[in-house]
Amino acid sequence: MAAPAALDGDVIVVGGGIVGLSAARALAAAGARTVVVERQRVGAEASTAAAGMLAPQAEAEEGSPLLELALRARDHHSALAPALEAETGLTVDLAGRGLIELAFTAEDRRRLAARREWQVRRGLAVEALGPAEVREAEPNVNPEVCGGLYVPGDRCVDNVRLVRALAASAVARGASIVTGRPVTGLVVENGRVAGVTAAAEVLRAPVVINAMGAWAGLLAGDPLPPPVEPVRGHIVAFDMAPALLRHVVCSPRGYLVPRADGRTLAGSTTERAGFDKTVTAAGLRAVLAIALEIAPVLADVRVADSWAGLRPGTPDGLPVIGPGALPGLIHATGLYRNGILLGPLAGEIAAALARGLPPPVDLAPFAVTRFAAARR
Amino acid sequence: MAAPAALDGDVIVVGGGIVGLSAARALAAAGARTVVVERQRVGAEASTAAAGMLAPQAEAEEGSPLLELALRARDHHSALAPALEAETGLTVDLAGRGLIELAFTAEDRRRLAARREWQVRRGLAVEALGPAEVREAEPNVNPEVCGGLYVPGDRCVDNVRLVRALAASAVARGASIVTGRPVTGLVVENGRVAGVTAAAEVLRAPVVINAMGAWAGLLAGDPLPPPVEPVRGHIVAFDMAPALLRHVVCSPRGYLVPRADGRTLAGSTTERAGFDKTVTAAGLRAVLAIALEIAPVLADVRVADSWAGLRPGTPDGLPVIGPGALPGLIHATGLYRNGILLGPLAGEIAAALARGLPPPVDLAPFAVTRFAAARR
Repeated sequence: MAAPAALDGDVIVVGGGIVGLSAARALAAAGARTVVVERQRVGAEASTAAAGMLAPQAEAEEGSPLLELALRARDHHSALAPALEAETGLTVDLAGRGLIELAFTAEDRRRLAARREWQVRRGLAVEALGPAEVREAEPNVNPEVCGGLYVPGDRCVDNVRLVRALAASAVARGASIVTGRPVTGLVVENGRVAGVTAAAEVLRAPVVINAMGAWAGLLAGDPLPPPVEPVRGHIVAFDMAPALLRHVVCSPRGYLVPRADGRTLAGSTTERAGFDKTVTAAGLRAVLAIALEIAPVLADVRVADSWAGLRPGTPDGLPVIGPGALPGLIHATGLYRNGILLGPLAGEIAAALARGLPPPVDLAPFAVTRFAAARR
Repeated sequence: MAAPAALDGDVIVVGGGIVGLSAARALAAAGARTVVVERQRVGAEASTAAAGMLAPQAEAEEGSPLLELALRARDHHSALAPALEAETGLTVDLAGRGLIELAFTAEDRRRLAARREWQVRRGLAVEALGPAEVREAEPNVNPEVCGGLYVPGDRCVDNVRLVRALAASAVARGASIVTGRPVTGLVVENGRVAGVTAAAEVLRAPVVINAMGAWAGLLAGDPLPPPVEPVRGHIVAFDMAPALLRHVVCSPRGYLVPRADGRTLAGSTTERAGFDKTVTAAGLRAVLAIALEIAPVLADVRVADSWAGLRPGTPDGLPVIGPGALPGLIHATGLYRNGILLGPLAGEIAAALARGLPPPVDLAPFAVTRFAAARR
């Protein structure tokens, strides 16, 4: 049962998505012997299925602890993208033109006005746009638009490229990445974490980071597993001439994200269908309706691809970031609709905790222990 | 400029779809040296893009000359399928359970009642169904159905398999099939057809059958080309357990065709977009709406594939079958929404004309000369 010593380490990171790779990258830079154990390949799940929105102002609710974390995460991306490019030579296509959210109904306008009000109060940059201003900023949006918001700080990143750059950086910094090896459970000794079991092998480390996304609740031996649940989202990718859209463009029902490669991604649905990534008729239809409401000109554009991914949702919609119920266990999951936005920061927070450092933000709202009462 | 003698013949058939293969199969059986010249591969276009409906009663209008041709073509399929299977060992999955058309609105019911009335008058088998009878016959249709028709004679065939069997039979009977060779024009000598040009080559034959589908108007040298226009149709293929549907099921807006392989095909749109087979957002959305109206249970079924094909439409919606404007030229095209249904019969009619035999049906309504006045 003894594992090859080469795969033991100071920290084992379970899950090779954006969270796990970011944690490993930070740990390796600090000199920790770090092993990412990934059941498939890096970024195989939500990290590459997402559309890459970095939109705390479009997603967060007033007063939610998520807002502060998300704003900080957005700044973190601004620093991360050039650092990754300098380290690896890989661009992540962090797009800087901001986000426009559209209103098509009186109810949409009311929602946008309310959001603008609290965000201005909070000191965030956000501008109200009239229909003519929206169409001037984005000539291809639906002419029935009746108003909008411009959020200069929200943006998007090519999350597929981000996975690639994070993996390259983590490896260059000295992390090990072991793929194709499913972790099934924790090894617990003397009441604390001592490693993980991966198939018939034991990989030993005094610290284990659970960065398993929608699968984070399935790590055997965790007395208080994060109650994450997969929440399916459909994406449709359109072929197109670049420059159909200049910004990320949202409605209260979904979004369009222009990619540097010329495609436009449309999303998304929120469906509870278990661990089922089937592209369904209902999912496709919903995303096509979102896309065509925002930009009817897409009606004649080729649908190049479609897929579905599984977000890690939690009962209260907040992440699970912080110590687990066993010494040596650290969670970084439950990022739900903000996985690409929060992922790098969540990974670095987990890395700080793994090194015994104080977290850079207050993690109390994100503690897994908030779910302990409900389980009893 | 002399072509290899091996590719000269008695008859050249331009186009290797269901029409052209059927013509070649009939000609070869009659001992004619027959060469099919196909620019891509057999069945590359509408012949395999279609869903395989054989539904004269669901498609035809009262009193249209198309109806008699279509009914005859339906009978022809009943004889063709076992003949092909006996000859080639290949099944074409001719499904025998009939077609059910659904009504969801008062207007739908009115249309179905009117159709039933004239079809009963015409002596065709058709039965009115109440909502309970519809749901008993097809438990998975939308419970909001308010009525229906059962047409026992309408059915479907696997048109991909039909192409394969027709090609195998035509070759076995002695026809040549030359693929990857685009025909660009007619060779005309002494006022009559003497062959075709294919790239730099001349293939000689005293009779040429134009079975070019949506491209039939593009044969250079034809003084009165059939005014066919491509009419795009989208199809969505669903994965599924077999037996979700027992019959072909239509609404006035589209149809679902259960395939023997377990998939269900949904169609279709009628779009004038030139020779553009792009799968568009609007096309996909329209077909998904058709499918989900007929069988909401499809909402959670995997969308396995989608494509678009080009039907050969004509200004009056009727085929072009019969002699062309030059001696030796014969048309068999313009089958529009009934290409799989009419294709084998149309090919055999063209073969009869090529052999100088009288056509088995009155071709006056389908003569290309009906478009001569409009062109002057």
